[in-house]
Amino acid sequence: MAEKQFVKEIADINGDFPQWYTDVVLKTQLVDYGPIKGTMVIRPYGYAIWENIQRELDARFKATGHQNAYFPMLIPQSLLLKEAEHVEGFAPEVAMVHVAGGEKLAEPCVVRPTSETIICSMYSKWINSYRDLPLKLNQWANVVRWEKTTRPFLRTSEFLWQEGHTVHATQEESMKETIDMLHLYHDFARDVLAMPTFIGKKSEKEKFAGAEATYGMEAMMLDGKSLQAGTTHHFGQKFSKAYDIMFLDKDGKHKHAWQSSWGVSTRLIGAIIMAHGDQRGLVLPPMVAPIQAVVIPVAAHKPGVLEKAREIADLLKNAGIRVQLDDRDQSPGWKFNEWEMKGVPMRLEIGPRDIENGVAMVARRDTCEKFTMPLDGIAQSAHELLATIQTNMYNKSLAFRDSHVKIAHNMDELQQVLDSQCFAKVVWDQDPACEALFKEKYQATVRVMLDEEPFQDTCTCCGEKCEHPVVALVARAY
Amino acid sequence: MAEKQFVKEIADINGDFPQWYTDVVLKTQLVDYGPIKGTMVIRPYGYAIWENIQRELDARFKATGHQNAYFPMLIPQSLLLKEAEHVEGFAPEVAMVHVAGGEKLAEPCVVRPTSETIICSMYSKWINSYRDLPLKLNQWANVVRWEKTTRPFLRTSEFLWQEGHTVHATQEESMKETIDMLHLYHDFARDVLAMPTFIGKKSEKEKFAGAEATYGMEAMMLDGKSLQAGTTHHFGQKFSKAYDIMFLDKDGKHKHAWQSSWGVSTRLIGAIIMAHGDQRGLVLPPMVAPIQAVVIPVAAHKPGVLEKAREIADLLKNAGIRVQLDDRDQSPGWKFNEWEMKGVPMRLEIGPRDIENGVAMVARRDTCEKFTMPLDGIAQSAHELLATIQTNMYNKSLAFRDSHVKIAHNMDELQQVLDSQCFAKVVWDQDPACEALFKEKYQATVRVMLDEEPFQDTCTCCGEKCEHPVVALVARAY
Repeated sequence: MAEKQFVKEIADINGDFPQWYTDVVLKTQLVDYGPIKGTMVIRPYGYAIWENIQRELDARFKATGHQNAYFPMLIPQSLLLKEAEHVEGFAPEVAMVHVAGGEKLAEPCVVRPTSETIICSMYSKWINSYRDLPLKLNQWANVVRWEKTTRPFLRTSEFLWQEGHTVHATQEESMKETIDMLHLYHDFARDVLAMPTFIGKKSEKEKFAGAEATYGMEAMMLDGKSLQAGTTHHFGQKFSKAYDIMFLDKDGKHKHAWQSSWGVSTRLIGAIIMAHGDQRGLVLPPMVAPIQAVVIPVAAHKPGVLEKAREIADLLKNAGIRVQLDDRDQSPGWKFNEWEMKGVPMRLEIGPRDIENGVAMVARRDTCEKFTMPLDGIAQSAHELLATIQTNMYNKSLAFRDSHVKIAHNMDELQQVLDSQCFAKVVWDQDPACEALFKEKYQATVRVMLDEEPFQDTCTCCGEKCEHPVVALVARAY
Repeated sequence: MAEKQFVKEIADINGDFPQWYTDVVLKTQLVDYGPIKGTMVIRPYGYAIWENIQRELDARFKATGHQNAYFPMLIPQSLLLKEAEHVEGFAPEVAMVHVAGGEKLAEPCVVRPTSETIICSMYSKWINSYRDLPLKLNQWANVVRWEKTTRPFLRTSEFLWQEGHTVHATQEESMKETIDMLHLYHDFARDVLAMPTFIGKKSEKEKFAGAEATYGMEAMMLDGKSLQAGTTHHFGQKFSKAYDIMFLDKDGKHKHAWQSSWGVSTRLIGAIIMAHGDQRGLVLPPMVAPIQAVVIPVAAHKPGVLEKAREIADLLKNAGIRVQLDDRDQSPGWKFNEWEMKGVPMRLEIGPRDIENGVAMVARRDTCEKFTMPLDGIAQSAHELLATIQTNMYNKSLAFRDSHVKIAHNMDELQQVLDSQCFAKVVWDQDPACEALFKEKYQATVRVMLDEEPFQDTCTCCGEKCEHPVVALVARAY
């Protein structure tokens, strides 16, 4: 019955995953389309997830010595042009401002697609001595990239993100920062989003425009496609040379600084949806769920029911749980469906008989199990259940992922693996020609190179003996 | 000695207040100029103040039933044009995007100067029934207004702010929201920024483009000028008619909704600086100070001193105080100056003799007093001192303000009051001609109309008998 009702509202997750995604993000009011093509409005329910992500990440950034700052959104075009590879990568998708305040600007500006250029121009001014280093700043901001094909959260003309930009006196330090932040993202995804990820170096082709090396965090979605959920970049001295960031070192010599940058965006919300959702809609990890528990009075007109439901809700709220009492004039069944679709981790039903028995009926969103929970000590029990749900969601995702990664010894096997909606581990000699073939033949790309021993000495693609074999993760991707 | 040193770094606050302001914001590294004229970079020390403002305000918004959301920054030009007064007010200062992704856009976009237009277009879609009301959303965002004359925090081409946008079923409700939020801002300024403000209705001339009524919060700066620190607007049904926001009411009738909007911005940081600063630089209220206490070891090379200083700093940190240990290789005197300029509310000095005596030497930034504080129970004592400083700063500001507001019975008195760097209370018949004379003769404006009994029945400006006399606050303003 419930299943049937949902089929009316959202497309079949197994039959049409892209439509399921679109239905879910719109019907649960996470997001709406903005008036300009490719833009999104992040509605309160979606924005609250972003706030939870921000709070958790920001605390981790600060605990590792980073500070927040804010740089202007409008960048003089000439600044963008200073780093050759960077401009080549970003120029095609920038939005330009030629007119402001009723006048044509002497020099046009670009709306930031990312802030390396303007931040480096300020760093050049601020950094003079080794005493000014390391400088580890982060910015929470909106960026604009004019994309041809857009989907809410996954790829939009404007999105929200954070971008860290650090400067160091030595290559060792900036490389350590690049790797440390990759691990910070990985641990955050695991502990907060309940999402296992693969981390590793990106191929030359996939690296950030202007970086010496890019590292990525890739998450498996339920359709077997990969989503790039975060990246960290090692710039070496490329930007410090282009933007003249020099410091007087302890040895009395003037040197170019070493840099990193790293970012995650509102795309993470898309990752959560596609990593955990099911036929009924969203399944949100308790750590980021805007509402962790919903309390629903059953037979609310009977004396004492609404009061008891409110009492329980207050109890949970005071215990630090994000709770909502749903006392709207709708049937309990209607409410169950609504909150299931919205992915609230736990539902508590309070009816006359439950009150008599000193219990609440509890439904877990992750397993759809129903059971009673004693009202006595319910705040503690609720906390424990939320922790259990968080852990279970991670374990479930991990088991799903592990059963969907397969080794491909050759191109035939690669096709089979990809067509069965899995990620493939391949051996690859880092030859761009083979990488191009993955794309051309199977619409798949090298997501990251894994820190694993090669399982054969020949390339999965060309079959030739490798000189520098690596294990690469190959998948279709968002 | 210390005074002398500061004279070198920052201009005389009494001799050249504008230069003092510029010196302070730059030398304390709150802000720097961006590469495009009129833009600012908010540096970590300045941004941390904004984060403290955000956290405190956001909690108050949520406690009063508001939710956050995020709307696109780029607004189709046609949307801006729908409300006639609104477009007239904002069109002259917008930045325009004509080209994006390498192509000329079919319709140009404006970079939001404020978001009424795009938010109302979405509300029109979302709101159908009285059940959807009230809708009380807030957005934290950047906005762009191309200004001719700019100063960091006070008036910049891009700034950060929050904008609340609410929709109600009745005029009473939307008017109540407009006034409630004005009081929320007023209480926030008093309790968090230690800043007394005047609140009241704005004149017709000064109201927001498209509003039926605007209310303002005005703060007195140390040079006797007024700074508009926040505004709330009652839209009546003007925007709901322009953007077609209708709902089916309980009585079965379709009605246009009633709306409010309200905002404060990074301008508040400028207000803090100019309301509390002194000859030595910043004086920050503990509630928003990025660093509430700095611990400085004296004779740090002597055994046990640095360890003790670190121990004290850790103790304060664990007690929830934002503390910094300054163990840099600089003289204590140099550090005292630096942290005084940066406005840190309390400084603790730890030297060998202090340790021997079981005390720390404490310096209050607000009064510049120095005294000893027992190490025993120091976390509790520090908390109490911070609370005392917060209260004292408010009382000091209030006394300053109250002694700088004077009654002006006629235009001669008004000139005297304004020239003595005070605010004037005038009686005014709400005649725009008189308002224009305040400006023309004395470069002063009606800041707000106060909820007070008129002290005479004739207009301060024209001397004629008033039909609808109000007490207006007239001042020179930022």
